[in-house]
Amino acid sequence: MNYGVVIYVLGMILKAEAAFMFFPFIVGIIYGENSGFSYLITAGICLACGLLMNIKKPKKGGLFLKEGFFVVALGWIVMSLFGALPFVLSGDIERYIDAVFETASGFSTTGSTILSDVEAMSHAGLFWRSFTHLLGGMGVFVFLSALLPMLGGNPINLMKAESTGPSVDKLVPRMKDTVKILYSIYLIMAAVECIILLICGLDLFESLCTTFGTVGTGGFGIRNDSLASLSPSVQWVVTIFMILSGVNYSMYFLILRKKLKQAITLEEVRLYLIVIILAVAAISINIYSLYPSLSETVRAASFQVGTLITSTGFATADFDMWPEFSKAVLILCMFMGACAGSTGGGLKMSRVLIMVKSMKKQIKTLIHPRAVAKIRMDGSVLDDETVHSTAVYVFIFVAVFAVSTLIVSLDGHDFTTNFTAVLATLNNMGPGLNKVGPTCNFGFFSDVSKLVLIFDMLAGRLELLPMLLIITPKSWRRNL
Amino acid sequence: MNYGVVIYVLGMILKAEAAFMFFPFIVGIIYGENSGFSYLITAGICLACGLLMNIKKPKKGGLFLKEGFFVVALGWIVMSLFGALPFVLSGDIERYIDAVFETASGFSTTGSTILSDVEAMSHAGLFWRSFTHLLGGMGVFVFLSALLPMLGGNPINLMKAESTGPSVDKLVPRMKDTVKILYSIYLIMAAVECIILLICGLDLFESLCTTFGTVGTGGFGIRNDSLASLSPSVQWVVTIFMILSGVNYSMYFLILRKKLKQAITLEEVRLYLIVIILAVAAISINIYSLYPSLSETVRAASFQVGTLITSTGFATADFDMWPEFSKAVLILCMFMGACAGSTGGGLKMSRVLIMVKSMKKQIKTLIHPRAVAKIRMDGSVLDDETVHSTAVYVFIFVAVFAVSTLIVSLDGHDFTTNFTAVLATLNNMGPGLNKVGPTCNFGFFSDVSKLVLIFDMLAGRLELLPMLLIITPKSWRRNL
Repeated sequence: MNYGVVIYVLGMILKAEAAFMFFPFIVGIIYGENSGFSYLITAGICLACGLLMNIKKPKKGGLFLKEGFFVVALGWIVMSLFGALPFVLSGDIERYIDAVFETASGFSTTGSTILSDVEAMSHAGLFWRSFTHLLGGMGVFVFLSALLPMLGGNPINLMKAESTGPSVDKLVPRMKDTVKILYSIYLIMAAVECIILLICGLDLFESLCTTFGTVGTGGFGIRNDSLASLSPSVQWVVTIFMILSGVNYSMYFLILRKKLKQAITLEEVRLYLIVIILAVAAISINIYSLYPSLSETVRAASFQVGTLITSTGFATADFDMWPEFSKAVLILCMFMGACAGSTGGGLKMSRVLIMVKSMKKQIKTLIHPRAVAKIRMDGSVLDDETVHSTAVYVFIFVAVFAVSTLIVSLDGHDFTTNFTAVLATLNNMGPGLNKVGPTCNFGFFSDVSKLVLIFDMLAGRLELLPMLLIITPKSWRRNL
Repeated sequence: MNYGVVIYVLGMILKAEAAFMFFPFIVGIIYGENSGFSYLITAGICLACGLLMNIKKPKKGGLFLKEGFFVVALGWIVMSLFGALPFVLSGDIERYIDAVFETASGFSTTGSTILSDVEAMSHAGLFWRSFTHLLGGMGVFVFLSALLPMLGGNPINLMKAESTGPSVDKLVPRMKDTVKILYSIYLIMAAVECIILLICGLDLFESLCTTFGTVGTGGFGIRNDSLASLSPSVQWVVTIFMILSGVNYSMYFLILRKKLKQAITLEEVRLYLIVIILAVAAISINIYSLYPSLSETVRAASFQVGTLITSTGFATADFDMWPEFSKAVLILCMFMGACAGSTGGGLKMSRVLIMVKSMKKQIKTLIHPRAVAKIRMDGSVLDDETVHSTAVYVFIFVAVFAVSTLIVSLDGHDFTTNFTAVLATLNNMGPGLNKVGPTCNFGFFSDVSKLVLIFDMLAGRLELLPMLLIITPKSWRRNL
């Protein structure tokens, strides 16, 4: 491991975090809250540490794939550890481990909370909590990577470690431009949603926080009942923007380039939309008798499918009370997740596609032993390497899932709670079922379980490998 | 599809089943039960159908891999459909679908039951129920394949379709000899267990039925409390033979050939034993306070780990009442399953090994990008094909699991029940948790769910692909 470059990049991250903390500080001032100053203090701490770590500039060319993965994993941990400080300093959250859980949940866009009474929090705290979703959504490292070419190596190494799904394409030849385009799409989408929410009658503060939670597919709300008490129009707007946020950003890029035909034939996006439509239809039929009208039924079903398939985690209904079939459909949506190259979590639709296509190929080979079956996606042949790494991803997912469930079950809660708590954190979902259902919180878990779930949230957001790397002792060895 | 050969082989299977039914008939005569005659009647039906289907001898050379898979899947279905008849004729089971469930559960060595009162059954019925485990254990087709060379093609095609785990090795050059050796080991193991159980004080009937359930890793008992009321010595004997039945039979073959060193270094068997020891230790510590003495604790833990990891499904304790951690360990054991090339179900230890090794390789490649990492097992390099087919197996498993859970959840039972019911049948386990826990039964499910679970039992026993093939319409097309 090249520690020089790792420390330097971590320093830059801390300086960036210091800058981000000015936003909640300003919110604190606007609302006349003392808690705002805890963000100022933490910003000072971050800045001081960042400057210290940036004193020695590393030699060029030390940022390889391993360092990329390593620095990304450590970076998210450091961000969460420092980002948790103001919650404790302001008294918004009592215990540090809970504050770290909340911050990691925010940055990883999970949205699981340990708070039982969100509304008791200061405005500055609520803002910071939601703001971490916006920052986590596209990855601060993707942002930084545009500034990092001076470190040498290939900044796509950082992007690879942080982007969702099996393949990262450079949309345009220059990395810096790719990042700019992605960020522009992301921020424009956020701006549009925020404006529409303002028109629907939300105040600026709630519009902003809700927008952060939506476009980052995070899920922290600022009300105890999440979005249940908001108007139907607001719920529909959020539903649509959640689903849009789960689409592979390549599609928006293609649309921007006026390659409409290519955009609408993306197999992954098609599957994603088909699954959403089928799930909404199946659940609507299943829960129809529980709701007074068809429109309310479809709204509730669409919102919950949208929130779970994109791993956002907002809630308008307590789906834990829905019939078992609907719950099973929702759990399946949780597993599949949104598209690769989006802010959503889960297995990702492209991996589901690769899995289904591998199965089909196997059966085809059995029926026609002499035919040469190939797996194609969007017209081009998928290489064995992609199929293989999908398989390994699934293996690692299963292994992390099993070990996590095992440790969490030491707390003695029921199987559904443990199983869906791990699923909700590892897939960056937010709520699970039973004791971690949409009307509950994660506060009751032991500290050990909370640490495991924090690990799972970050591992899920970083597509497993970076977090596995930093718990592998060999990877900490100095480069010779 | 070459229907001539398919029909001919199915005819042979039915003739074999007719022969097997003489055993419960004799049991009926010994105990003076009328129910015995229902087996005689069914034997007549099987024989008549078998003879009809064997009138036209197919041309040689029509048995390819596709036909092998196809005939195996259809064969197990036909065996279950005919094998269920005597239960209904004798009145032991009222509804035909329940009888099919019970028979498929027997042949697939699952051991899930729809009976709430096993002890109300006739002796002939109990014997047939347990006897299906013995027959299902090593696969009647492996048996038949020794008689089938006259059909041309390669009889290993049948064996491939029916054997457990990723690779089938011909132990000795001649297929017929391989089958003979495997059958000898199997039957000798059964004989030894039966004799020891007699010495422990069980009567012949119970010794036989218990042995069938053990060596076939089936799990049907003849008492309502399974094995709970039997003596500690009997429970220990069964525990040991369950674990021995989950070992890859290649090991016994190597021991027979006096290749001891090779036998004890088999990685799969080592992992299997290590997992058992760790699981027993972890559970013993966890449940220590529930039992009066250490020996009882270890006995209960060993029995339950043995029964679940080998997918047998006997029970001596209601593990549904155990702490959540122990339950999580047991569920993990259920998933992993026994060794390939044994009668046990589940994912199989060799697949777990391949998955773990692929993960290690991935991380190693990340740390040392220039190193060429290869996956080795028992000294030799695993080819990409094996790793790939393991991946596809896991994909198919996940897909079948998800679809099954979805359909079963339409019945409206809780998630843990649905989830573990599918797990218990697909892994040929037997009992699950909650409403399908070790003291409960599967009788309350709807007919649709029962059909899905029957499919899962057979799919699990046949390693998924054969059953998938017969629900693929294209595979039913005639060969041109």
